[in-house]
Amino acid sequence: MEQVVSYIDTNKERYLNELTELLAIPSVSSRKEHQGDMQQCAQWIADHMERIGMHSVKIFPTEGHPVVYSEWLEAPGMPTVLVYGHYDVQSEEPVNLWTSPPYQATVRGENLYARGSTDDKGQAFIHFKAVEALLKTNGSLPVNLKIIIEGEEEVGSEHLDSFLEEHKDLLQADLVLISDTSMFEKDVPSICYGLRGIAYMEIELSGPNRDLHSGSFGGSVHNPIQALAEIIASLHDDNGRVTIPGFYDDVRSLTKAERAAYKKLPFTDKKYAGGLGVKVLYGEKGFTTLERLWARPTLECNGIWGGYTGEGAKTVLPAKAFAKISMRLVPDQRSAKTAKLFEKHIKKIVPKTVTVNVRTLHGGEPAITPIDSPGVEAAVSALEKGFGKKPLYQREGGSIPIVVQFKKILGIDTVLLGFGLPDENAHAPDEFLDLNNFYGGIRTSAHFFNELPKFWRGKSKRR
Amino acid sequence: MEQVVSYIDTNKERYLNELTELLAIPSVSSRKEHQGDMQQCAQWIADHMERIGMHSVKIFPTEGHPVVYSEWLEAPGMPTVLVYGHYDVQSEEPVNLWTSPPYQATVRGENLYARGSTDDKGQAFIHFKAVEALLKTNGSLPVNLKIIIEGEEEVGSEHLDSFLEEHKDLLQADLVLISDTSMFEKDVPSICYGLRGIAYMEIELSGPNRDLHSGSFGGSVHNPIQALAEIIASLHDDNGRVTIPGFYDDVRSLTKAERAAYKKLPFTDKKYAGGLGVKVLYGEKGFTTLERLWARPTLECNGIWGGYTGEGAKTVLPAKAFAKISMRLVPDQRSAKTAKLFEKHIKKIVPKTVTVNVRTLHGGEPAITPIDSPGVEAAVSALEKGFGKKPLYQREGGSIPIVVQFKKILGIDTVLLGFGLPDENAHAPDEFLDLNNFYGGIRTSAHFFNELPKFWRGKSKRR
Repeated sequence: MEQVVSYIDTNKERYLNELTELLAIPSVSSRKEHQGDMQQCAQWIADHMERIGMHSVKIFPTEGHPVVYSEWLEAPGMPTVLVYGHYDVQSEEPVNLWTSPPYQATVRGENLYARGSTDDKGQAFIHFKAVEALLKTNGSLPVNLKIIIEGEEEVGSEHLDSFLEEHKDLLQADLVLISDTSMFEKDVPSICYGLRGIAYMEIELSGPNRDLHSGSFGGSVHNPIQALAEIIASLHDDNGRVTIPGFYDDVRSLTKAERAAYKKLPFTDKKYAGGLGVKVLYGEKGFTTLERLWARPTLECNGIWGGYTGEGAKTVLPAKAFAKISMRLVPDQRSAKTAKLFEKHIKKIVPKTVTVNVRTLHGGEPAITPIDSPGVEAAVSALEKGFGKKPLYQREGGSIPIVVQFKKILGIDTVLLGFGLPDENAHAPDEFLDLNNFYGGIRTSAHFFNELPKFWRGKSKRR
Repeated sequence: MEQVVSYIDTNKERYLNELTELLAIPSVSSRKEHQGDMQQCAQWIADHMERIGMHSVKIFPTEGHPVVYSEWLEAPGMPTVLVYGHYDVQSEEPVNLWTSPPYQATVRGENLYARGSTDDKGQAFIHFKAVEALLKTNGSLPVNLKIIIEGEEEVGSEHLDSFLEEHKDLLQADLVLISDTSMFEKDVPSICYGLRGIAYMEIELSGPNRDLHSGSFGGSVHNPIQALAEIIASLHDDNGRVTIPGFYDDVRSLTKAERAAYKKLPFTDKKYAGGLGVKVLYGEKGFTTLERLWARPTLECNGIWGGYTGEGAKTVLPAKAFAKISMRLVPDQRSAKTAKLFEKHIKKIVPKTVTVNVRTLHGGEPAITPIDSPGVEAAVSALEKGFGKKPLYQREGGSIPIVVQFKKILGIDTVLLGFGLPDENAHAPDEFLDLNNFYGGIRTSAHFFNELPKFWRGKSKRR
């Protein structure tokens, strides 16, 4: 691996120039006028795959933007890694807030500024360069590899599901590797091994059969806004715990190792609260903030509305009130089951003065790749070699739909090897990528492919 | 009075034809294209005042639509009545839902259908015809009389306040008489002697300094929607009572006579609930529904909003949540004091996890003209003579801003002698006036002017 790392060091400048070329293509997936740029970007990546030595390079058309596929499968008996990334970017608007032109990558200090630098062209490119270094140095890879780079991540990966369904066999692998997230903070390389799932609900509460005058009728009927407030208020107890019966039944307990690992992260409640502008944090008693965010299920109101919401005063006692409420799920909760528990509970507690309609808007399962699994162990070892310091473990409180889909459709767990930073302005003006993370990322990626077989204990699932 | 009533009977047809003429003018105050109709309508009323024998007829321009004034002040030592009404109407739209053309008054059954028939041209016209009958029969009125008919009631009486302020002396009187409301139901003549006041508030609850991703941050901070729901839920106790300390301190207790009077009204909870489409009514324990509506203060959420309120799902943990909350007040509560109690309480109970901003949007005082006051006693006697049955007492749960303004600016109590019915489609297609109430109203109005001096015990306030 010394030679591989030396190859990476020697080619730093060229790598940066190539990335600059990729970042110059305004591949904004949401805008029709960039249709041609999307095609051009997919072609650029396909050409690049050929150049670094990948095989069977193909541009798969979809009903939306194309997916670029390539593979290298000449390591018999070794595990197969499926690298996922996306070449589409968010719109550059508002352009006037950019310090340098969004599609003209510019180095300032240790950062490379451009739309797509961290989300996700730069991070996907990290793996291309690691593969190049391995293939050019050794003539082979230590693992089997498949790479798919899609063009619709920023518009909801609308056609990825059907692409995965149609190409189940082609895409079969032992592990998905994605670099499209952030490390915990600068100089704190970390490995994200879990995501929360979601059950997203809507409540419609109906009172009187029409909007009433709150003067003429106030005092005679249960105001649906009040009734809704009473229901929402009752969904947490004084300890910040969700009161829905059975809600916590399937929650996997945190291990001692996990709780110890989170404590090592550079995190204080005070600094976190300060960053959010709140005096006091809130949540389930008996857990630290990071534990609550990552490993405990929660219930949040995402929206509420009813009655008059414009300027000034209108004396209405509304016929209806609505709320959107989502529950974040952790292993081993299941979205459909949780949605049912929610609906059953709401229907049980709703007072006779109103009627309720509960709808499930969408659901997604939680995901976890245990910290003692080969993929995570290889990633930890690779990060230590790539960045020169032991990485820390983290989870993420949100859901990443593609991770859920890889598990659901292909049955494969994902390792999230994020080389971004939390403050890199993804989706905003002056998006950047920390160049230390760019080069450290390339070294880490190369080490990951090299380390994985050592930790691999199972049989390769690839047919 | 026999001759007066006989005059009314003899002239029934002409009265109806004259009202039909008044209703033919499309005096829609909210529409610029009806500016000319507004002027024409004011002129019609002024001409009519001259014709029935009123003096000093004048059309007062305002910054909006004009006010028509007239007086008859030749009853020295007798009380002075100020009759208020309005000649403007709501728009006739949607026209296609009218059975007969909105400005072509049409008799069907016992009803007269036209825009403005009950709200308020028809009801104001009732007093014109009573005055005519008295003056033509007796050559004089039993009381002093001032009549103002404004043209902006349907657009919030925007310039009435300044009109009252500017003409305080001209408008001085002992009692305001308004017919712009409904009797309790058909064949149940009733006298409305009280209105509730209002204190209308807005709460802005702030949590984190920006909208957060509910996955990445859910479980760490107090969601402002949840916190708002908890606050709103806490504002009523299990007995439906408002929990704000001091809220009930100034509430005047219902007298035995009032409670007994309300029990005489043809009202059942079952029928009322059925009409509103609710299975179970809600409100403060220890009071009947009518008592709660009319004589007890209440707190209602008029609006609530926060987070995502569009179609589908968005995983936001919002920075802010808002509610509009109004309190209906009864004698002797005061709007400003109640608003202060509310603000103080909210600031006391708001958790440290969020911050709150409380604003007063508007306020109005409750009004009551006691049932043993001369004005109400005269109205009761007049209704009995006019309709041939003892009227019942009622209050109204809403506020009528002009009643509050007459009290505030001129210091005069109002008697609300409603000749409408609750189902007459005011503001809607097929508005109508019950003709029994039209003629009964004219008789009642004449009797009222005749009865008032008998019950008058005080000195006339008129200078």
